Amino acid sequence: MTDTPHRYPEEQIAAVYRAIFERRDVRHFKPGPLPPCALDRLLDAAHAGPSVGYMQPWRFLHITDPALRQEMHALVEAERLNTAEHLPSRQQEFLKLKVEGLRECAEILVVALMDGCEAHIFGRRTLPEMDLASAACAIQNLWLAARAEGIGVGWVSFFDPQALARLLAMPAGARPIAILCLGQAESFPDQPLLEQLGWGHRLPREQWLFENRWPEDAAPTPVSY
Amino acid sequence: MTDTPHRYPEEQIAAVYRAIFERRDVRHFKPGPLPPCALDRLLDAAHAGPSVGYMQPWRFLHITDPALRQEMHALVEAERLNTAEHLPSRQQEFLKLKVEGLRECAEILVVALMDGCEAHIFGRRTLPEMDLASAACAIQNLWLAARAEGIGVGWVSFFDPQALARLLAMPAGARPIAILCLGQAESFPDQPLLEQLGWGHRLPREQWLFENRWPEDAAPTPVSY
Repeated sequence: MTDTPHRYPEEQIAAVYRAIFERRDVRHFKPGPLPPCALDRLLDAAHAGPSVGYMQPWRFLHITDPALRQEMHALVEAERLNTAEHLPSRQQEFLKLKVEGLRECAEILVVALMDGCEAHIFGRRTLPEMDLASAACAIQNLWLAARAEGIGVGWVSFFDPQALARLLAMPAGARPIAILCLGQAESFPDQPLLEQLGWGHRLPREQWLFENRWPEDAAPTPVSY
Repeated sequence: MTDTPHRYPEEQIAAVYRAIFERRDVRHFKPGPLPPCALDRLLDAAHAGPSVGYMQPWRFLHITDPALRQEMHALVEAERLNTAEHLPSRQQEFLKLKVEGLRECAEILVVALMDGCEAHIFGRRTLPEMDLASAACAIQNLWLAARAEGIGVGWVSFFDPQALARLLAMPAGARPIAILCLGQAESFPDQPLLEQLGWGHRLPREQWLFENRWPEDAAPTPVSY
């Protein structure tokens, strides 16, 4: 057994894995606010995310204006219908899915990438999209902390980013990547919702883990529309 | 106090936050393998990441061939020098930074986005980069689980993605987004390395959290080169 002086006690390790495996994308919320100060703790967790060149590219907008929430819902609904129109074969099935809980959730955060990202070239010269990767890691921090706190989070990506940027007065170069809905979750089901509903299944390891080189006989990408 | 039936016991919540705040990007590794089966557990944690439309776009390549590791190191070193050349003012400071532990770490994973992503349009019609966001969340899962297990992880993004894709025989449409170095960490410092070294500082909340709309007087993006 390797010496691992930085290892947490077993029950703490188990808690981290528990949050990872029990995290869900939540679209069904019960009424009621978040526990006191929970939003602050979740934002701190997000801000502890990694970032390339320490650029901390995430910007969070806390949406407290009910009229703005309503306008955001309209944007999302428009894109949901657009998406359905572009789904070749699973349109009816898709339209039955609940894809967001914007009107019911307790709190809404919009996550955006900052403007002026080009100023940070360290570690992303060849991979400029590392700002998005960093912001996604920050969101995953928030998501896992929320799961532990019993708070549901749904990442809504159904929106026209330019329209949302305009609505929220974002400067040129900034762009929204997520609408996060937070609130009291009705439940955290054992399986992801899309698996429960038969939309897709968890890929077996041989389809996503290779040794050294990409195998020529790798399973083709499953098509889900 | 809001009723939160899905809330974990306090010590489990604390463990999740502990991993979030104590996670570091590790570039200094001690010799020695990972604990038995740790890599399997970490990969399972990654695969429990969220994904838009349940597309599970992440592909992991476990690099076990020492010659391939050597070639990857050469690719990274070339890009490190390229980056230095393009840093207008902080070149010498940058060159002193240790940005990767590819030769010393116990295990290397390359994370790539799959080919054929366009088949999955649900939830990313207007945001095609959601495949990258999903894969980054998967990596953050692995990173946090590793921290709890006392294992250091470093995300190396210094490479030419096309050159690395060729080296690893990736099909057209697939592309690498991360080289992950895993191993026994020398330490998990209290502060991120780049903060310790004075490269940057943690942004205060008023610079990354806004209410409703982006403020006109938002702090300009800090320039770090």
